[in-house]
Amino acid sequence: MSFVTVNPDSDFPIQNLPYGVFSTADNPQPRIGVAIGDQILDLQAVKHFFDGPVLKNVQNVFDQPTLNAFMGLGRAAWSEARQTLQKILSKSESMLRDNAELRARALVPQSLATMHLPANIGDYTDFYSSKNHAYNVGCMFRDPKTALNPNWTQLPVGYHGRSSSVVVSGTPVRRPNGQLKPDETNPPIHGTCRLFDFELEMGFFTGPATQLGDPITMDRAEDHIFGMVLLNDWSARDIQKWEYVPLGPFLAKNMGTSISPWVVTMDALQPFLTDNIPQDPVPLPYLQDKGNYNFDIKLDVSIMADGLTKPSTITRSNFKHMYWTMKQQLVHHTATGCNINPGDLMGSGTISGPTPDTYGSMLELCWKGTKTVELGNGITRKFLQDGDEVIFHGYCEGNGHRVGFGTCSGKVLPAHPLS
Amino acid sequence: MSFVTVNPDSDFPIQNLPYGVFSTADNPQPRIGVAIGDQILDLQAVKHFFDGPVLKNVQNVFDQPTLNAFMGLGRAAWSEARQTLQKILSKSESMLRDNAELRARALVPQSLATMHLPANIGDYTDFYSSKNHAYNVGCMFRDPKTALNPNWTQLPVGYHGRSSSVVVSGTPVRRPNGQLKPDETNPPIHGTCRLFDFELEMGFFTGPATQLGDPITMDRAEDHIFGMVLLNDWSARDIQKWEYVPLGPFLAKNMGTSISPWVVTMDALQPFLTDNIPQDPVPLPYLQDKGNYNFDIKLDVSIMADGLTKPSTITRSNFKHMYWTMKQQLVHHTATGCNINPGDLMGSGTISGPTPDTYGSMLELCWKGTKTVELGNGITRKFLQDGDEVIFHGYCEGNGHRVGFGTCSGKVLPAHPLS
Ligand SMILES: [Ca+2]
Ligand SMILES: [Ca+2]
Ligand SMILES: [Mg+2]
Ligand SMILES: [Mg+2]
Ligand code: NI
Repeated sequence: MSFVTVNPDSDFPIQNLPYGVFSTADNPQPRIGVAIGDQILDLQAVKHFFDGPVLKNVQNVFDQPTLNAFMGLGRAAWSEARQTLQKILSKSESMLRDNAELRARALVPQSLATMHLPANIGDYTDFYSSKNHAYNVGCMFRDPKTALNPNWTQLPVGYHGRSSSVVVSGTPVRRPNGQLKPDETNPPIHGTCRLFDFELEMGFFTGPATQLGDPITMDRAEDHIFGMVLLNDWSARDIQKWEYVPLGPFLAKNMGTSISPWVVTMDALQPFLTDNIPQDPVPLPYLQDKGNYNFDIKLDVSIMADGLTKPSTITRSNFKHMYWTMKQQLVHHTATGCNINPGDLMGSGTISGPTPDTYGSMLELCWKGTKTVELGNGITRKFLQDGDEVIFHGYCEGNGHRVGFGTCSGKVLPAHPLS
Repeated sequence: MSFVTVNPDSDFPIQNLPYGVFSTADNPQPRIGVAIGDQILDLQAVKHFFDGPVLKNVQNVFDQPTLNAFMGLGRAAWSEARQTLQKILSKSESMLRDNAELRARALVPQSLATMHLPANIGDYTDFYSSKNHAYNVGCMFRDPKTALNPNWTQLPVGYHGRSSSVVVSGTPVRRPNGQLKPDETNPPIHGTCRLFDFELEMGFFTGPATQLGDPITMDRAEDHIFGMVLLNDWSARDIQKWEYVPLGPFLAKNMGTSISPWVVTMDALQPFLTDNIPQDPVPLPYLQDKGNYNFDIKLDVSIMADGLTKPSTITRSNFKHMYWTMKQQLVHHTATGCNINPGDLMGSGTISGPTPDTYGSMLELCWKGTKTVELGNGITRKFLQDGDEVIFHGYCEGNGHRVGFGTCSGKVLPAHPLS
């Protein structure tokens, strides 16, 4: 228990302690904080408490405007920092609890903070690792019999994304204009995206850097996974359809990717480890893992739209529906020798469950425009409309507490006029 | 003319003045320099001469370990810097010529310098904009009648690449292991790439940042193109073939991308402007450009291999074979609102000419393994072998001088043993 009051339904009890980067009106310099209840613990103000053997000489990682340096220190540092944080914030420890002056400086209400991207993201990769999602998309655009490409069950399919356009939750995202081909028999046009969509994903941030040429093997994969966020891979379906052969999605995805501001560490998620999905065929040895690395994280998506009084939940999914684990993704990503840096972001791919009420995109929820999605008050959707705010929430259910991710939200701005 | 001696066949006369980042044994701190003949002008040592209206208050851009800040200043700054450099280095100006102490500090022989990446590359994109190359690949893997996909002549096809593995010329690149499917009828294996290849490309670095959501229109595109380098998009053809459907090349490309260290500015390339390739169909209005933005840059590739006494030239191409211009690439890339930052790198795609002696990859030169490429001394190749050093060279032919790029080279290291 913490001396900071934490409501039972808070995403941020002392069992969580996610890291983020924030600023305030008083101090506009972005700095590292940890969420506790509805407060933020400013790590710059308490960095002197990190006096364990790993961190005592590198406390300056908590003076940075991003988490990259801390992410780069590795698991021993992350564990030691977590122990120190649990001590500082504990009800039974006086160091911060009884120091009113320090408390006033070190605890900042989340309501007064502006959140920033937690890391300088050098590279962003997006996978495609939910079998239900890949199968649904394959059925829509091909055939149930050939819905999954032959490589899909052999390797975690992924592609490189655009890191410059990753934005923090709360940043509006503009509906894109682009080249599309609304009519199969006519030439393409430069028009406004009509099939704008979200993709319910999670992402993980990488830890210590590797050298170019040196793959990460399965037994070392965990050492390079720092923590997770919610991720919305905004997608322009009509642009994607026309552009993506043969080199993959490009402009259909690069207008924005939103992430939640708080990075929940793998240590905090450890109690929610659950069985991997059985893989058939058995993966090649380099992708085999003896243990589980799947997590029971409840996910939901709501939309706040004109005419609603509160956001309407349109789907409930769970991270545990992932077929390929994050360890397998990372091992595969580096199998050819691709190097990683601290703060690289890797998206899971759209996380769809097995039933229609668990699908992770409007494309699937409206089944390519053949069904409507009910928002209540007589309001329906197929794809997203201007002004819609898409809100992801995710949490693990513990014993009397939640380890949560907060929200990842973004509002759809109308497209710029076509010139 | 410069007071620094420049051989007539040097790539770096006073008409060129490309920017790079270097260090020396004496001073291991990477810093910005300009190539002149076989020397480097250290801009940190002469930054006080940049006293024109645009640069006088931002001379600290020349104190940085990368070119990003200078790239971000924009065209007025780039032009003013070029004028100042031409003055400092001129035979008729005494400021540096007659200051022996400053000359000794400011001029460093290239032979004593280690070159670094010119910029911190936030994002790397690779296009596919040579029609000959796209047609050749289409013929090999599909049919001459359907060699070009329907979207290819409507937009500059491209994909996001991996920026962490972009390396500077001279860095060896390791042959990858990865998942591949050598036998169509058997399951895939984890094996060593056998079809390792280069791709002869050039790349451009971007200038000032844009805001997410705001496309770069054609009339502003030139403001965001700083300069060009040679680029080798190392490619594992067997890995690519198995992985790339439906999301594009991923591991087949992310084990390394080499670039030449000297960034040749668009001001230096201006005299070598040549006609665009006629585009049929006429592109959509957002991709139309009134003027030319194609450049006559001679390119060649040689291989130094065991058993040769000197590198053997295997192909000669020219940047002017590009179908889509860099301006069109940049406008298209940002059409959906994707933002750019100073120092983003955009590759051209493999630059193949119309005839077999001008093809830009081993895949095309050996026509998918059906022909051999002669290196001399009875040595032949289909794809690259371990120990092969691939050397790109590029230059523009002026009146009695060259504006050149130097070389972009990399040696193929043997794969790590399979575990
Ligand atoms: Ca996605
Ligand atoms: Ca390429
Ligand atoms: Mg995205
Ligand atoms: Mg590459
Ligand atoms: Ni040459």
